[in-house]
Amino acid sequence: MPRTPAYAAVSARSALAPFWVERREPGPDDVLIDILYCGVCHSDIHQVRDEWGGSTFPMVPGHEIVGRVVKIGTQVTRFRMGDTVGVGCFVDSCRHCQACAAGEEQFCEHGMSATYNGFERNGIELDRSRPTYGGYSGRITVDQHYVLHVPAGIPLERTAPLLCAGITTYSPLRHYAVKAGDQVAIVGLGGLGHMGVKLAKAMGAQVTVLSHSTSKHDDALHLGADDFIATGDADVFNTHAGRFDLILDTVSAPHDYNAYLSLLSLDGTMVLLGLPDPTPLAAGSLIRRRRRLAGSMIGGIRQTQEMLDFCAGHGVAADVEVIDIAQINTAYQRMLQGDVRYRFVIDLATLQDD
Amino acid sequence: MPRTPAYAAVSARSALAPFWVERREPGPDDVLIDILYCGVCHSDIHQVRDEWGGSTFPMVPGHEIVGRVVKIGTQVTRFRMGDTVGVGCFVDSCRHCQACAAGEEQFCEHGMSATYNGFERNGIELDRSRPTYGGYSGRITVDQHYVLHVPAGIPLERTAPLLCAGITTYSPLRHYAVKAGDQVAIVGLGGLGHMGVKLAKAMGAQVTVLSHSTSKHDDALHLGADDFIATGDADVFNTHAGRFDLILDTVSAPHDYNAYLSLLSLDGTMVLLGLPDPTPLAAGSLIRRRRRLAGSMIGGIRQTQEMLDFCAGHGVAADVEVIDIAQINTAYQRMLQGDVRYRFVIDLATLQDD
Repeated sequence: MPRTPAYAAVSARSALAPFWVERREPGPDDVLIDILYCGVCHSDIHQVRDEWGGSTFPMVPGHEIVGRVVKIGTQVTRFRMGDTVGVGCFVDSCRHCQACAAGEEQFCEHGMSATYNGFERNGIELDRSRPTYGGYSGRITVDQHYVLHVPAGIPLERTAPLLCAGITTYSPLRHYAVKAGDQVAIVGLGGLGHMGVKLAKAMGAQVTVLSHSTSKHDDALHLGADDFIATGDADVFNTHAGRFDLILDTVSAPHDYNAYLSLLSLDGTMVLLGLPDPTPLAAGSLIRRRRRLAGSMIGGIRQTQEMLDFCAGHGVAADVEVIDIAQINTAYQRMLQGDVRYRFVIDLATLQDD
Repeated sequence: MPRTPAYAAVSARSALAPFWVERREPGPDDVLIDILYCGVCHSDIHQVRDEWGGSTFPMVPGHEIVGRVVKIGTQVTRFRMGDTVGVGCFVDSCRHCQACAAGEEQFCEHGMSATYNGFERNGIELDRSRPTYGGYSGRITVDQHYVLHVPAGIPLERTAPLLCAGITTYSPLRHYAVKAGDQVAIVGLGGLGHMGVKLAKAMGAQVTVLSHSTSKHDDALHLGADDFIATGDADVFNTHAGRFDLILDTVSAPHDYNAYLSLLSLDGTMVLLGLPDPTPLAAGSLIRRRRRLAGSMIGGIRQTQEMLDFCAGHGVAADVEVIDIAQINTAYQRMLQGDVRYRFVIDLATLQDD
């Protein structure tokens, strides 16, 4: 079996450290991928620290993977040796339920196989004896149906974050059919938010960034936003009441949904992408102007491919800071202080193969 | 001016008592309506007791009005003398904003003129010196554009509640495009809930009533529901997880939205129709299965007419208990104890004209 170096946490209180994982020998439908870059998602930290519960260890994080195909199974038709490919947040699903049939594998009724901190499967069911290991590693074996084609035209290190941060913001923009001229607000300007700005702008929307302080004002405009609102001043919720058709809320810390809902127009929707602790919701916030509060979670394989192609076609890519794998623990510290613009990406060439 | 007897509360702590109101002499676009029946909505109690704040007194409640046209203005084209007509929750709006232009006058950006506890207008703006008085009265003058045709075929006393309880449940069923075979749940079996069951069933949905105890089981099935779930047993939220395409939540007392959201299928929507105090919302409840929590508020004039015609066409009407106007304070007491199946309707012939 292909043995590959990696970085893993052995418990919820461990720093990440060198580790070896066994990848499965490619079966008929598998491709073996040499990982070139892997983005560092905030959910990596949550799961490494078991902040959402249910984490399994040792854990090799990483679900924003770009690499090159180095081996293909006998029935692989979608990829050839040497292809540049991507792997996102899941590597398998049941393939039979209504969600899978609809190409929304992320909502698989039997549970998707998360790229890490998840489980391989025996057909329809998850096999809880076989954990998955993610992209902080040298190689990964993935079924061809869960692998994306990476189109030419975007630097690979700037492509990696599209596999999670990109699709997480692209999917609700499409689901709620954003079109030219729509008023779209992005709440929070981090890894998700900065992609939300770029993608909404590329779709022709009028984009406004909402951030607590004014510190990100210049960055927001530089990323392409048309407007910036500092929400530290509570008056802005009156001034801009009823303005937005769609709000993407990327904030993970608890905040008052009702205030943000007041900014929505008639039939407007606010989509939650983060997972803050529960906060009080007032029915009146939704009943007035017939508003909606919705959730969204990454996207299916078909839509992820569509997103990659859209980004290549519109010159959209993540703003990244490339790091050596040995810097990963420092990178986590900096992320917790909000000190990254806007995504760390690990260069896996820095992984020692011994 | 047409002076008409009525019942009014003179303060938030007063019982309703006989009162006289002046109605405006019908202008060119007005119709004068002899009120035959008026439904008693739970929001009448909230407003009479100033539980939502901002109530103005004296207050003549009532926004589920059925009557007969007894006088028409010179430019009235939509109605003739003797027509049977209805008036719902509003009697005017600005007629110029985007919501009004879209036929969603209930969301008028300048504020609709509520049928009572609201204000007449000077063109676009509300005139806060001219309060509106509702249907617990003998006559009312209303602009023809805010009056509904009552189709033949439904007893008039059973039609009155359609003007609020009917449209409040019909509108979200249409907005979320309920179709034959859809799994629809109705939470709470009161005035709104019993109309939700009948209307969803008439649209061909599979209808389930969710109620705290088993006490309404037989009633639910009698009203046409296919299934009944007693939510006092918390296990039902696991047993029925992911089952419903649409949930109409008619409950006004605080309850855990997250538990009910867990019952929604992929892309399912729960619509809030009541106004409970705020309760904690967990983002995960929405992110899982890409669910939506939405609000809805009555419906526009065009859709209200569509609803009345739909009800006549499908033999749908409210289940009512007709009362004399002198019984109104007792009726309020009984409503607060949940002792009404499912709507009190005042017979205005019992109003003393002296």
